[in-house]
Parts: sequence; structure tokens; C-alpha cells
Amino acid sequence: MLSFESDYIEGAHPLILQALAKSNMECLSGYGNDPYTKRAKEKIAGICGCQSDQVYFLTGGTQTNKILVKTMLLPYQGVIAASSGHVSVHEAGAIESAGHKVLCLPSHNGKILASELDSCITDFYADENHEHMVFPGMTYISQPTEYGTLYSKEELSRIYQVCEKHKIPLFIDGARLGYALMSRENDLTIRELASLCHVFYMGGTKIGALCGEAVVFTKKNMPAHFDNLVKKEGALLAKGRLLGIQFDTLFTDDLYFKISQNAIDRSEELKTIFIKKGYKFYIDSPTNQLFIIIENKKLAELKKNVAVSFWEKYDLNHTVVRFATSWATTKEKILELEKFI
Amino acid sequence: MLSFESDYIEGAHPLILQALAKSNMECLSGYGNDPYTKRAKEKIAGICGCQSDQVYFLTGGTQTNKILVKTMLLPYQGVIAASSGHVSVHEAGAIESAGHKVLCLPSHNGKILASELDSCITDFYADENHEHMVFPGMTYISQPTEYGTLYSKEELSRIYQVCEKHKIPLFIDGARLGYALMSRENDLTIRELASLCHVFYMGGTKIGALCGEAVVFTKKNMPAHFDNLVKKEGALLAKGRLLGIQFDTLFTDDLYFKISQNAIDRSEELKTIFIKKGYKFYIDSPTNQLFIIIENKKLAELKKNVAVSFWEKYDLNHTVVRFATSWATTKEKILELEKFI
Amino acid sequence: MLSFESDYIEGAHPLILQALAKSNMECLSGYGNDPYTKRAKEKIAGICGCQSDQVYFLTGGTQTNKILVKTMLLPYQGVIAASSGHVSVHEAGAIESAGHKVLCLPSHNGKILASELDSCITDFYADENHEHMVFPGMTYISQPTEYGTLYSKEELSRIYQVCEKHKIPLFIDGARLGYALMSRENDLTIRELASLCHVFYMGGTKIGALCGEAVVFTKKNMPAHFDNLVKKEGALLAKGRLLGIQFDTLFTDDLYFKISQNAIDRSEELKTIFIKKGYKFYIDSPTNQLFIIIENKKLAELKKNVAVSFWEKYDLNHTVVRFATSWATTKEKILELEKFI
Amino acid sequence: MLSFESDYIEGAHPLILQALAKSNMECLSGYGNDPYTKRAKEKIAGICGCQSDQVYFLTGGTQTNKILVKTMLLPYQGVIAASSGHVSVHEAGAIESAGHKVLCLPSHNGKILASELDSCITDFYADENHEHMVFPGMTYISQPTEYGTLYSKEELSRIYQVCEKHKIPLFIDGARLGYALMSRENDLTIRELASLCHVFYMGGTKIGALCGEAVVFTKKNMPAHFDNLVKKEGALLAKGRLLGIQFDTLFTDDLYFKISQNAIDRSEELKTIFIKKGYKFYIDSPTNQLFIIIENKKLAELKKNVAVSFWEKYDLNHTVVRFATSWATTKEKILELEKFI
Repeated sequence: MLSFESDYIEGAHPLILQALAKSNMECLSGYGNDPYTKRAKEKIAGICGCQSDQVYFLTGGTQTNKILVKTMLLPYQGVIAASSGHVSVHEAGAIESAGHKVLCLPSHNGKILASELDSCITDFYADENHEHMVFPGMTYISQPTEYGTLYSKEELSRIYQVCEKHKIPLFIDGARLGYALMSRENDLTIRELASLCHVFYMGGTKIGALCGEAVVFTKKNMPAHFDNLVKKEGALLAKGRLLGIQFDTLFTDDLYFKISQNAIDRSEELKTIFIKKGYKFYIDSPTNQLFIIIENKKLAELKKNVAVSFWEKYDLNHTVVRFATSWATTKEKILELEKFI
Repeated sequence: MLSFESDYIEGAHPLILQALAKSNMECLSGYGNDPYTKRAKEKIAGICGCQSDQVYFLTGGTQTNKILVKTMLLPYQGVIAASSGHVSVHEAGAIESAGHKVLCLPSHNGKILASELDSCITDFYADENHEHMVFPGMTYISQPTEYGTLYSKEELSRIYQVCEKHKIPLFIDGARLGYALMSRENDLTIRELASLCHVFYMGGTKIGALCGEAVVFTKKNMPAHFDNLVKKEGALLAKGRLLGIQFDTLFTDDLYFKISQNAIDRSEELKTIFIKKGYKFYIDSPTNQLFIIIENKKLAELKKNVAVSFWEKYDLNHTVVRFATSWATTKEKILELEKFI
Repeated sequence: MLSFESDYIEGAHPLILQALAKSNMECLSGYGNDPYTKRAKEKIAGICGCQSDQVYFLTGGTQTNKILVKTMLLPYQGVIAASSGHVSVHEAGAIESAGHKVLCLPSHNGKILASELDSCITDFYADENHEHMVFPGMTYISQPTEYGTLYSKEELSRIYQVCEKHKIPLFIDGARLGYALMSRENDLTIRELASLCHVFYMGGTKIGALCGEAVVFTKKNMPAHFDNLVKKEGALLAKGRLLGIQFDTLFTDDLYFKISQNAIDRSEELKTIFIKKGYKFYIDSPTNQLFIIIENKKLAELKKNVAVSFWEKYDLNHTVVRFATSWATTKEKILELEKFI
Repeated sequence: MLSFESDYIEGAHPLILQALAKSNMECLSGYGNDPYTKRAKEKIAGICGCQSDQVYFLTGGTQTNKILVKTMLLPYQGVIAASSGHVSVHEAGAIESAGHKVLCLPSHNGKILASELDSCITDFYADENHEHMVFPGMTYISQPTEYGTLYSKEELSRIYQVCEKHKIPLFIDGARLGYALMSRENDLTIRELASLCHVFYMGGTKIGALCGEAVVFTKKNMPAHFDNLVKKEGALLAKGRLLGIQFDTLFTDDLYFKISQNAIDRSEELKTIFIKKGYKFYIDSPTNQLFIIIENKKLAELKKNVAVSFWEKYDLNHTVVRFATSWATTKEKILELEKFI
């Protein structure tokens, strides 16, 4: 069975498994106090133009989102996000479970507009009853978005300026950041992105790691006693090496970027095939996720041979499905898929 | 200064103060274990066709909403409400602070539609990813709504049926319930309303009491150890008599309904004046809150003599303001207001 | 039935009811924005040597404890308290429900020792694993304690110094503070007490009010947007006047102190009777609560005529019960009790 | 540098790395919906005499403890544990962060007594004020305990009976369960242990896995929508295979038990050496953790060559340190240590 279900269907990049095997019997301190973790932090800090003590490794995306919202917000604040944002819809209420409200802005193909963000905050303070409402305390965006779309440098700069103006942090969910950075449409370097936000993370789970997200606090703004807060959330790994070794590998010899490039190249090939075959795109995505509108009948047929992700109902007879490529997708796999679509 | 700012600008109905004074030196057990509280519960149970041990007194509206959501929802559930609902906007994130998400439905003049409620729940279960989302676990409506509008018996019945069909409770916020029941447009008796929901409360704070909301669990569904849960929320009054005596008074000789009628009568008089003077209504409210669109310049003038509530900006030159009558509003006050508008 | 069950068995001091009645039909803004609340804050600030904008009124003791702990602690901190403290035992888990741990110190007749407090904090930081533990973030004491005992000026000063040394706030629960201040053993003025802590409250519920606690932040340290945080807890009264008017009355002409004195005088009379009759005290309390060890058989007899509070089992044949006097206890009542004991 | 710091200083058992490598490029569904996870669950269920749909994999110990407490307790309940329990001391307040209190019982070398457990619960219900207190809602024990000690079959049976009598679940933290099961002092089979509790877990993190704990609900009592609750906690791994493959390997050919045996054998050898050299034991541990009282001066010397864990200060001149063996400790390592102690 051919699978384009998601970008986390394979295990880890082979170099990661090699690194885990090679270091396996070394006796290392726990909780991230090991040299691999230290080195991985330094590499990431170097790439981003940040400090290595402001880099932190967590296990998964929802966990990271929850912990950052919980530790960076004040009690009277909520987080602003697109109505289509992962924190708004697909985290089983993790943000609310942390005691905070998600304040939704309209989603424009997964993105928010700087102008609407500015109005939202300005209107809040203009409302005479705002002391009885949830204060906007952080802006959450994802790059690429849940629809695979990208913020341009111009768009990100404007959003960042609005956040600076209102003195709230901008948080970029980069669960698939590598795929954004390698997209043909991207005009942002990782350093620029780091400078245009207050915290972001580079996902490993969806880009070649078994698990792991690398959080970067870009303004020396890591919350005090962050280890303790992470422990309190049940998110502190005893064997921190598992994360350290993986990220050390991913950020050696640009591996993270090279394998991200593979996903983009395969996605472009796939896009060409879809276009050629006359498929309709639900959204124009320049990254590794393609959203296709497909007849339900045809979908049933396709599913006999190919696993894809249900996205949403389009109309009575059509469904939106997602095809995802990844660091691991081969040219052969694309060609094989071509036979079935 | 004339005030139509809200329906909680005066103290308590004089009969309540008399009852407090009369019973003042009686030595009574605390935490609601006093005969006044017992009697008040019996009276309310009688009126609603429920059991007296399913009646409970709390202090304020947001407190009541928070406690009911927190104690009646399962951990994986959220509460469905109109986007204009009090729990959605004006409770400073109290619901999220209790760990639950508010799932918003469109507001139709403050109301939700049974059909949209049904679709929302049906669509949720049809979504293949719904295990990663917040389950719809309760429906919250207010009667009257935050815009003063009313659900008809037909509308409420349909919403109730949708809730029954999907096996989730319907919760009616009745912070101003008396004003709904006495409205000329109302076609629901209190017994009918009680039978068409799973829990509701009759507000005292806005209808003649110093504080207090009377919660009624209509299906013998009060959560176990409710006293303990209320204490845990910091909401258990040591002198439970304060609530018991007030509700005992309000539900003696139909006081609650009579004083609610006064607010409606005054509101109708006020409406006539506004119409006569050519004012534009933001919304057509049949209860004690009138929402008027007023020129900013005129509003500035008005505010010199009359206190009203800012509701929202209408456009650059106009504002929506709220005029509220109450159990305490006199005919004289209406006539005095007429001079200024 | 004679009752010495607690100090909250009567209603309110008659002057409070008069003040409520007199102001009843005045139209006042809600949520504490009324002149009575303003005046009450000024009076209390004057008495305590603090600023009036640092005074805040809440409804009950557990609510106040929960809100102060929740809003003054950082997320990685817990509150240190005597194992017998109200927050440790009798608040149904309200503190934990706010996400914080109570770190228990030994109770010495309800009090903690400065030396043990110091060791506890010093040991915490000396523990190499302390980043995996709950940080001591606040010290909670009650004056008088749950056993009616008092901290002397010397004792309080030492505890305050320990807190200052470790840079954590000292919070004094003064649910019965008036009774402490009027005790013959007390050597602390209200100004001294205010200067020797970071936040405290003077209880109204147990000293003549229907409800209400007056919180004083003594170092201009009220948390930002406190109204919002209180609203989020469901603790913001719409009719803030209810609290304002009561505290305005209690702090006019020293009423709070005079009525506290009455409780102490009655308690001393009662103590004399118990001594005369050979009763054994469980603890030597200099305030308005007396803890008596009584034979179970005798207790059963007593209960036919007098309501008292069960405190704890002493041994198989004896029980500890509490007799409480209050602002409302009359000499006649003491004499009547004498007949039954 | 020789390290006996903990049982999680090495990576994973080589067979686990092999299994990860072998399956690496297989395309598998996420979130635990893969055949390895399924098979691992079946194997564990078979060993424990439970159902495979009642087995669940989480990432770490504190995470597991927090999630089980949060999802198995009712809102008015707390968890009973030894004062030395991991949930009581070393989880940074994770339990309280979940809204629940830890109710401490005395620790007898890390264990609780069935008799004290019974009294604690019985006394709770006998207390007339118990509705204002936290209800005992679960018993938490660890096997082996934090001090390496073991409950015998007799002791566990009695504790289980007390829990059954009071209708609260017994939860066994088995972060190091393999080491308990292989101890010479152990008289419990895994099936017996499973039958004598309501939920337990077998730790992988400390026994050969990179991460992972296998939770077993023994009475078909897994909370509804457990996936959703885990997601809400940020604990649902996208690549569930990481846990599935590891546990599939650990429970193939008794690997889990064999490698646990190694730790015990090495620990016994180490114990012999300590005895021979006249060291004093802080506690008599029959499992893989040895607690030694060592002079501070000697400890400073030792630390130049050997990493050990600080446990607690013993007195001014002595410290308690922990030496841990593990699945990976070799005979050679023990002999090498012998030279330094």
C-alpha cells in the first residue's frame, strides 16, 4: 500500500539512527545535560543568530504549543491565531486546558493579515468593557500554515511590527519549517525569520526525526526555570540525549535543509502530475502538502491502493484530501502514485 | 445623574432588606444548611416542577457559568455557545480557566439556530480527525440573550431535541430570566422552560437581589459532592443565609415575577419614546435592554445627564448604547429621561 | 437552641443593615466603581498605612486564599503553610485546583516557626534536584490561626525577615483578624502587621458582615489587571456596593474593632467558666475560639441544648469541640450556656 | 568517567535499535495506529492477563503519573501517596498542575502501610467537615519504591483490599517494575501484580528503551476517549511507532525480564563489595538502586572518578548517595568501580 498520508509515516533519517547507535553505550547525564544536546543547541543557535542557552528541545508539536502558550502568557491573556490554526482546532483543547483562550482571526488560506491583527488588538483596547474580556497576549502563526501556504518576508515583517507595537510576542509554529524554508516561493532566511519573531520552533517529527521540536527563544526571553515548567507539564525526557542526538545530526552538514529540499522537489513533481491530469486544487500550496478536490467515487477507488489524509468535505460529491511528501519520499514513489491517480 | 447603565445599579428590593433585618439575629448554620435556604429551594422547586435538592444558590453569573461548565463537562468536552454569548466574550476567560473550550456558533441576534447546532455536532463526528478536536459536550444559551432577544417555545424545543439527540445537556443562562418570562413576546412558562433544558438558573443579581443566582438541575442531574466542587471554586458562602433569605423573599407571593414585570413595562414605555423620537434600534429587543444607535456627538451631550452603557462602535460617527430598565425603574425616571433624549 | 457553632451564625451588624437600607435606591456603578467602595478603601488604607488603590474586596475566605495564591505565585512555585492551615486542609483542594502545591511545615499549635521556615527554603535550594521540585514561592500564615493562637510581634517579624531574605511574599490570612487584634495577648497594631507582610486580609464574614474580605497589598504589589483575574475566577460581584457599603460601615468609628472586642470579652468570660467547671482545654486560645476536650457521653447530652462544632476525635471516649463567640455574642448567652455545661 | 548516576544513562538495548532500523522505511500510520504498537499491546496484555485495548504507551514517568491521576480522579478527589512518593516530591507540582492534591501518608522506607491507608480513608469519612476537604480518590504506590524497596504479595494484597473496600483505584508506578520483578526478594508475578491493582505501568525509559512507559488498565477501566485526553496533555506522539517498536522488542523473548535480571545481578555484586568494604547502607534495597552513607570528604574524592546521584544530606559530615545499576551495567564496570570505593 502506497502512502501519502502524512510526512510522519516513515521512521528517522538513517543518519539519525546511525548517530543513536554510535553513541548508544556512552553514559550520559539525563534531562538534556549531555554533550550532544549542548552541541545541537550551539549549532541551531549559530544558524539562527541566537544564544545556545535559548534553545530547548521538546518532544512534539502540540506539547510545544501548549508549553509555550502556558509559560509565555500572563494569566489574563489569550493567544491570537487564525481560525484554521492548529492551536485553534486540532489540539483537543490543549490550550484551554492550560487555562488560556484562543482568540480567532479570519483565516486567509491559513494565514492571518497584519491589518486584521492590528484592528483586533486596537479594537480590544477601545472596548470600554475590555477588563471583562481576554487580553490579546501573544500572536500564533504557523510557517508553513496548516494549508501549506507561506508568509512572505513582507507579510511576516508587518505582523511582527504589529506585535512589537502592541508589545506582545509573536510565536511561529515551525512544525514543518524546513519545508517552508526550502519552498521555491520562500523569501525568508532562517536568520530573518528568527529576527522577526519572539519564539519559534523547527520541527523534527515531520522532518526526519523520530520525535522532537527545537524551540528557539529569539530575544533572550526563555521563561525562568523553564526545565521546571516543562517537568510540571510531564514533558521533560529523562533521556534528553534522544532529542540532542537527533538535532545534532539534523543540523550537521545542513541535513535538515537538504532533506526538506527533497520533500519540496517531490511535491513539485507531484503537483505537475496533478495539473497534467486535470485535478482541481483546493488551495495553492507551495510546500510539501497538496490539497486536492476529488470525487468521492474516485477517492474510494484510490484508497484501495493509496493512503491519503481526509481533510474536509468539499460538497456532497467531493472531498478534500491531502497528499504529503516528506524528507523520505522517493522519485519512484511519485511515479508509482501516478499510476493510480 | 440619571442612570440607565444596567439592571444592577440599585440595591435590593425593600422586602429583601426587610427579611434580612428580621432574621438577622437568628443563629443559623452556615453553608446553606439553614431553614431559609431550605424553604427557598422548595419554593423554586415547586414553581419549576423539580426537586428541591436539585436547587442550588450561587453568588454571580460568571461564577455560575464557570462552575456549571466545569462540573457538568467531561474533560474532553467543550461548550457550544453563540459567538455573542456571555461565556464566549465577557467572562475574562473564566471558561478556559476551567480547562474547557467555547465552541462558537453564529449569533443570530444573540441566538443560535437548532439547525446549525445540529450540523455542528453532526459534522464534528463526521470529521475523521475528531479525536484530535474538542468534543461538543454541552449547549449554552441565554434567555433573554445578551441582546435582549428571546427564544420561542418552538425554538427552544428544537434546540432541546438536538441536545437530547446528541446526548449533551442544554444549559440556559437565566441571569435575566424574569425579564424574559414577563416579556410580551414570551410564550414559555417557567415549567416549560425547566422541562426543555438540563440545567438553568434564575438570576437574582439583576432582578432585585444584592447578589445570587438560583441554579436548577432539572433532570436530577446535580453533580455528586456539588458543595465540595463549589468550595473548591471558592464559591461557597459561609453565610449561606444571605442567598437563602433573598431567594425565599423573591419567590414569596410571586415577587420575582412582579418586579420583572415592572422592568418590562418601563422598557415598553421607553421603547415608545425612542420610536416617537425617531431613534434607530440596533436590534429589536422585547425585554428590559434596549440597544440604540446614537450619533457620537449626541451621545456626548446625553452623557452629561444620563449614564448608559457603551455596547459597541456602530460606525465612525455612531455608537450602539444600551438603556436598561429594571425591577426598580419608576415611571418618573422614564419621563425624566424623555427630556434628555 | 443555643448555638456556639461558629462566628458566622448571625447575620450582619445592625449598622451594616442600616447602611444597606439607606443607600439602597441610589444608582451606583457596578464592579466596585461606586463611592462607598472608594471610601471604604480609603478608610482601610488610612488605618493600615497603605494606598487605597491597593485595597480590594472579595466575598469569602477560601475565594480570597485561592485568588491570592493563584495571582501572586509564579507557575513553578507553591505556597508554604502550616500543616493545620486552612489552605492545607479545609478548602476542598482550592489551591491545587489553582495549579499550586501547598508545601507543609509542622504546626505548633497552628503556628509555623521562623527557623523551620528558613530551613525549609534553605534546604530546598541546597537539594541538587530542586529543579524537579516545587519552589517555595509564598508563605501563608493565619492570624489568629485555625486554633485561635497568635503570632507575637517578635514571631511575625522573624517570619517576615525570613521571607524578605528569600524574596518571597508573606501572606496573612486574617479571616478573623479583628479577634486577634483585640486579644489581650496581642502585641501587634494593624499598622505593624501591615508592614510585616506583603499581603493580608481583614475578614468581614466572621466579624459582622454578611460576606466580604478586605484584601490589602502592602507593598504596592497588587497584580496587574486584578479585576480581570478576579472576574476570571468568577469572583467579581456585579453589585460591588454590597462589599463597599459593608466595609465602609465596619471601618467607620472603629466598629470593626469594637465588635471584635466584644467577642474577646465574651470568650474570656466563657474561658473562666470552663476553668471553674474543670474542663480541659485542647489548646490555650487567647481569641474567640475555645477548644474543649469533652467526654462523648457528655457531648451527646450537651448537644440537646447547645450547637457546637466538632473539631476532631481526641481518643475513643473524648472529642475536641469548638465554642466560638463573635461580635454578636451577648453576656446573656454566656450565662445561659453556663447552665448546660 | 565511570557513571552509576542512574539507570537511564545509556541509550537503548541494541535489539531496540535494530528493530527501529529494520522497520525504519516502512510507511506506518501515526498516533499508535501501526502494527508494531498493536503487537506490543497484545504481548503485554498476554503477559499480564489483560486486554490489549487496555494497554497504552506514553513517553515518560511524570507524564504518565500526571495523566493517570488527571483522567482517573473525579474533580473532588486527591491521590494518596507516601510522603516520599515521586508524585509527592519530584514532579515539580505536575499533579497539582492537573488540579489535584497529593494526600500524604507516612513513608516506611518508601512504602505505605495498608493499616494507615485504611485509617486515613476511614477517618476522612468520620470527619464531620469532610465535605470541605479533598476526598481520597486513588492510592498511588511505586514498585519498587523510590528507595528501591518492595511490597510483598501479602502487603500489596492488603493495600488492594483496602482500596477495594473504599472503592478507589490502586495505581502502581512501575517506572522500574522489571527490577522489582527480578529482585531476589520479590514474591509477585506480573500477573498477580496486575490483578492486585487497577492500573499500573511498566517503565521502558529506565529499562532499556530510549523512552516509553507501558500503561495497563487491569479492570477494563481505561477512561473514555483516552487518546483525546492524552493529546490534550500534549503527550500524543505523532510517530507512535517509536513506542510500539520499542515495547514490541522488549516483550519479545522475555527481553524486558532478562535485562532487568542483569541490573539485579550487578546490584547484588555491588552490594557485596560495599558490605565487604564496610560501607553503611542508608536503606536496605533489594533492587537496582543502592543508597550509601558516605563521608563528604570521601565523596569529594570519589566524584573525581565516579558519577553518582546526590540523594540527601545525612548529617553535617555525611551524605546519602545513590548507585544505580541497569540493564546495561557490565561486570567489568562493577570491578572498575571497586577500585575507587
